[in-house]
Amino acid sequence: MSLEPRPHQAMREGAEFDTIRALMARWGDLAVDIGDDAAVLTPPVGGTRVVSVDACVEDVHFRRAWISAHEVGVRAAVAALSDLAAMGARAESVLIAFVVPDAWREQLSDVADGMGAVIREAGARIVGGNLSRGAVFSITTTVIGRATRVVPRSGAGVGDLVVVTGLLGGPGAAVAAWRAGESPSAWARGRFVAPAPRWAEGDALAAAGATAMIDISDGLAGDARHLAAASGVHLALEVARIPAGPGIAPDVAMQSGEEYELLACIPLEEYKALAPRWGSVSPVPLTVVGVVRAGPEAATSTDGVAPSAFDHFASGNTPR
Amino acid sequence: MSLEPRPHQAMREGAEFDTIRALMARWGDLAVDIGDDAAVLTPPVGGTRVVSVDACVEDVHFRRAWISAHEVGVRAAVAALSDLAAMGARAESVLIAFVVPDAWREQLSDVADGMGAVIREAGARIVGGNLSRGAVFSITTTVIGRATRVVPRSGAGVGDLVVVTGLLGGPGAAVAAWRAGESPSAWARGRFVAPAPRWAEGDALAAAGATAMIDISDGLAGDARHLAAASGVHLALEVARIPAGPGIAPDVAMQSGEEYELLACIPLEEYKALAPRWGSVSPVPLTVVGVVRAGPEAATSTDGVAPSAFDHFASGNTPR
Repeated sequence: MSLEPRPHQAMREGAEFDTIRALMARWGDLAVDIGDDAAVLTPPVGGTRVVSVDACVEDVHFRRAWISAHEVGVRAAVAALSDLAAMGARAESVLIAFVVPDAWREQLSDVADGMGAVIREAGARIVGGNLSRGAVFSITTTVIGRATRVVPRSGAGVGDLVVVTGLLGGPGAAVAAWRAGESPSAWARGRFVAPAPRWAEGDALAAAGATAMIDISDGLAGDARHLAAASGVHLALEVARIPAGPGIAPDVAMQSGEEYELLACIPLEEYKALAPRWGSVSPVPLTVVGVVRAGPEAATSTDGVAPSAFDHFASGNTPR
Repeated sequence: MSLEPRPHQAMREGAEFDTIRALMARWGDLAVDIGDDAAVLTPPVGGTRVVSVDACVEDVHFRRAWISAHEVGVRAAVAALSDLAAMGARAESVLIAFVVPDAWREQLSDVADGMGAVIREAGARIVGGNLSRGAVFSITTTVIGRATRVVPRSGAGVGDLVVVTGLLGGPGAAVAAWRAGESPSAWARGRFVAPAPRWAEGDALAAAGATAMIDISDGLAGDARHLAAASGVHLALEVARIPAGPGIAPDVAMQSGEEYELLACIPLEEYKALAPRWGSVSPVPLTVVGVVRAGPEAATSTDGVAPSAFDHFASGNTPR
């Protein structure tokens, strides 16, 4: 069995297949092994293979009036790929299932470009997909990746620090502005339309010994509860420590969804080793926002309940 | 790394997660490793891993007035899994992404049961998925499987026989009847609502040396053109040989889609070895319908152009 990807298979004439051919032309060498009943996955070279699926539906996950077709594609790809970053994995292969109303046919190439840019940046390939008509535009993206060390949601231990990447609140602020008929700030809009999967950050946290990790899609408050439930622990978060974007209050930032930043738990000693070199990992900050405690399986957000274990890192926990 | 599947991860409270918990309860031990950002795939024990995705959209792939919610689930699962059978693969893992309008919430358990029955029968497990609101009900199913010998669409050689499993025309006849406001025959309805992935048949054809294979989703005529285009050959089909269901003309049967029967090319000697023991492989017939010739990359359906190479098998090519 060759490790080289198989070439595309020729497809017969027809409008549906013309559309698929147009997408393949758009993607160029980013797409491999398209056109058979199924794609062949090359054997992983070490590590563990992981898989996830995510859907992006018009008028549920975005409104066309808010963002461009290219940005729709970027967001759909990031939302799916971010789940791999949150496992400490890197993306290898992507399958894309489009449901396309007539009104979207002309814009499909722009959507494909947006997805392609993110997938190319991730170092992955598009190996399959599906194209269907339908009344509502949607993109369902399957992502397959590989992890040297899988970081689940369930491994948080009592005493671990709770850390988060980046600055939160942008997507929430952008949606709130659009809903109010206003224009979001450039920073908030950028965070909504062009989020980035946190590959380097997820890798570094996994390698450093993170015990549990999740990407922030429902909002920090909600995803912290996921992680707490999966690990059977209590996440004590300190609102004042939440890293919020410009002009955004921390308690608002922790409700903002579709951030695609990473929330992780990591033992104190491992954090001590990671923090001084974080600046070489990523340009976005890594911030300690709480501590893992025993107790009910729910995270709480409490002002003034400082996680004492990391107080002495407080001044240094945002490298830039 | 253990080969045992990981247990489910607990999820936090909330209506969305209650729905996921209800699905997991419905599926029981059929679902594993649900609730993390991504599912871990156990390493394949030999063979090649293959992956495919397929979408089933209300009012595109089915109408709710025609079939039950359970049958919607069956069809969605079969449509996706059949692509693995057509590669000569067996299913291992399934991810299911639902888009669910409010009107479908009560019926989601029945859909899940239908999918679950097919996935269980296939010997696969549900390892992940996605749940989204949306205006139109859809199911996007990702299937991951393993093949000892992958059979692509592209390997057909000049002189190979063209064979097809089962009796065609049922789904087409059922849809035609419904569209005319009539009731389809029990046989035609059964073929539409409860198709079956041809696992044993795909395995046997792959092991016997089939050179190219595809499942019939667009109709025999259309899928033969796919296979011809992928292989760069001409498929000469003889209409009179098309195995059609009761009361269905062969030329109508070859236009019927969503059959999920297999169309394959196989060298004469390999067919000779397989045909006598086909009855022990499958209860459905294996019928020679044509021959692969050099020439333009399009399949034609021609009366009276008998593929001479298999004429002496004509009397024995439908074992029952």
